[in-house]
Amino acid sequence: MNSPTITPLEGAGITAPQGWQAIGIACGLRYSGRPDLALLVSDVACTAAALFTTNKIKAAHILYDQPILMHNAAGIRALLVNAGSANACTGDAGVQDCATVAQAVEQTLGLPAQSALVMSTGVIGVPLRVPRMVTGIATAAAHLGPTPAAALLAARAIMTTDTYPKQYAVQVRLADGHSFSIGGMAKGSGMIHPDMATMLGVLTTDAAVAPEVLHAALRYVADRSFHCISVDGDTSTNDTLLALANGQAGGPPITELDSPRGHALLQGMLAVAQPLARDVVRDGEGATRLVTIHVRGAADDTAAHQAAMTVATSALVKTALFGADPNWGRVVCALGYSNTPLDPQRLVLWFGGIKVFAHGVPLDFDERAAHQLLDQAEVVIDADLGLGTGTATVWTCDFSYQYVKINAEYRT
Amino acid sequence: MNSPTITPLEGAGITAPQGWQAIGIACGLRYSGRPDLALLVSDVACTAAALFTTNKIKAAHILYDQPILMHNAAGIRALLVNAGSANACTGDAGVQDCATVAQAVEQTLGLPAQSALVMSTGVIGVPLRVPRMVTGIATAAAHLGPTPAAALLAARAIMTTDTYPKQYAVQVRLADGHSFSIGGMAKGSGMIHPDMATMLGVLTTDAAVAPEVLHAALRYVADRSFHCISVDGDTSTNDTLLALANGQAGGPPITELDSPRGHALLQGMLAVAQPLARDVVRDGEGATRLVTIHVRGAADDTAAHQAAMTVATSALVKTALFGADPNWGRVVCALGYSNTPLDPQRLVLWFGGIKVFAHGVPLDFDERAAHQLLDQAEVVIDADLGLGTGTATVWTCDFSYQYVKINAEYRT
Repeated sequence: MNSPTITPLEGAGITAPQGWQAIGIACGLRYSGRPDLALLVSDVACTAAALFTTNKIKAAHILYDQPILMHNAAGIRALLVNAGSANACTGDAGVQDCATVAQAVEQTLGLPAQSALVMSTGVIGVPLRVPRMVTGIATAAAHLGPTPAAALLAARAIMTTDTYPKQYAVQVRLADGHSFSIGGMAKGSGMIHPDMATMLGVLTTDAAVAPEVLHAALRYVADRSFHCISVDGDTSTNDTLLALANGQAGGPPITELDSPRGHALLQGMLAVAQPLARDVVRDGEGATRLVTIHVRGAADDTAAHQAAMTVATSALVKTALFGADPNWGRVVCALGYSNTPLDPQRLVLWFGGIKVFAHGVPLDFDERAAHQLLDQAEVVIDADLGLGTGTATVWTCDFSYQYVKINAEYRT
Repeated sequence: MNSPTITPLEGAGITAPQGWQAIGIACGLRYSGRPDLALLVSDVACTAAALFTTNKIKAAHILYDQPILMHNAAGIRALLVNAGSANACTGDAGVQDCATVAQAVEQTLGLPAQSALVMSTGVIGVPLRVPRMVTGIATAAAHLGPTPAAALLAARAIMTTDTYPKQYAVQVRLADGHSFSIGGMAKGSGMIHPDMATMLGVLTTDAAVAPEVLHAALRYVADRSFHCISVDGDTSTNDTLLALANGQAGGPPITELDSPRGHALLQGMLAVAQPLARDVVRDGEGATRLVTIHVRGAADDTAAHQAAMTVATSALVKTALFGADPNWGRVVCALGYSNTPLDPQRLVLWFGGIKVFAHGVPLDFDERAAHQLLDQAEVVIDADLGLGTGTATVWTCDFSYQYVKINAEYRT
């Protein structure tokens, strides 16, 4: 049999694959007394692929990283991530600051020029604190380690309003006896909407993967994970999802996706990226519930995704979910304005498995039972549009007082 | 000179034009002790035009009214509006209920068949309480009146979570000495987003207007009023904007818009519709501020409207406005993902007249002064995209704890 075996590596993250070291340190960039600068280093040059925000206003790190990924996608050695400053809307000076801190990483670690990437998250318009970061880079370089604890420190250092660090890792064992690992970390937790968000995500692997294959794999995986989540519908200036593959697991390189090894890579990356994406939503600003929305019976998968995301971003649906109110009318309403084919006579809707609406009219369901099913940390809404074979699954969170509080007072 | 004179009629509403009577009564449909059923009647047959929601799920009253407006657009005599039930997702029975209450209006008042329209607002999925409404119609018919007080009762009766009734009226005096009046009422205050909302609006006039001219005028006016507002981005199942013209002011009928009388009609309708639309936003669920967003310098007017509406619907912008936080980064970010042409180097942004961002970078402005300017009941944001001549003005409100509270507990 050809299927790979995917084994979760509990408590592990970006250093789970061979040949990776990381650290997170408190650098005093914004948050006192907690890590806010992360450094990730590969023992050897690795291939890299990245997806960046579709926002027309792009943070400086994106403008800095993009040309490097164009010219040196097989020669990446390190990644520096800071919290506290988004380094967006900072003009040419912001991009120059990226170059300065990237060069500090390269010189401190003795790496080739243009082998370090940078990422930033935090407040828009705030420039990098370059001297502090340069000092911090030296400290970080001295504390790099391959341990799960080091990976966890890095995952902590990239947090902004996140309430917990997000990391996962899996081992992928192939039928031919070879194996490799994939680790990942991510941060949310506002400006979260597909086409990335103030979402930073990093996937590492010790598989050997050709750059163009890694890019295709990353896009496939993002379309089934980070592109399927929404916290508030705002697509940020900084969203970045990066994949790095250093080949240290041995075994032949993966040169095409449509192969047993390519499929194993996709499955492994999905096994890390999906729980990371769900965690970003679960830890969405002010969220009290993780809500999974399944749409089936749509005209096609694209329509299913659009219908599901419209429900996922409706402020009225999300506030009703905060109140655990089985207010199916708001879900039907959102499906109705989602700009996808819809026939109310064919629509069937379930809240947590309770059928609440079918064929144009509400059903006589047990409101108390439905309320109790919605008053949980994880909630599922199912919609069958009855039109075709399109399906989609997306994740969102509820909309609480706390979301408003966090975002009314973010800078104060 | 050709310009008409537009004079506000303080305290007046839908009965300000000649030949209109109205009333609002407490019918016990949902809200105890306050009006929840409104009746509006013209002394003579009038022309009618309506715009309905673009939501694919349409309330029963829309399915009932649309064919009547197709066949009898010059023979309308009455309008019945109920609060408490949206009569949406109620299937064929919901449409039959509309027919029953419309016929009760026609029979009670001795009007021709199919001369009464209906509108509903309230909770989706709740059917009309037909027997109570039939009884209420008799009571309402007995209390109809042409006074401002009667109009105010009607404006009160259509409220749901609105905190105050919304009505305006103007007199339009033409250069040729003729005059006519226009009155209007509207209700919000959730599910408010262009292409209508759980928004009901009614404009009455005693001008004589051909049906197709009235329809074109209504679309022009809606594009500059109710289509330029957002409370929560949700487009409801019930949105309806209705214009009724009974010709009782005398004077020649308006048979084309591109004429002095046509222009006067547009100006008069705008003078009523714009303050109604602004009131809907000002009274948006949980709103503490009315926010006007002007965009200029866009590639064209459509792009300007889209850019402005994207800012107007950003949860992050709206929560920052609740906190009176001059967080220009979120406005820039929203412009960036608005899917309109944007060059950050050409963008200039003002909060309440204070320039905060220009040519790709933030300016060194007085944060305290900006905070004070934003901490007002009315706030203005200006953006110049620097690309072309497109302009747009839209209105939104801030996003408060109270919005979440109202919508988490709406049905409980």
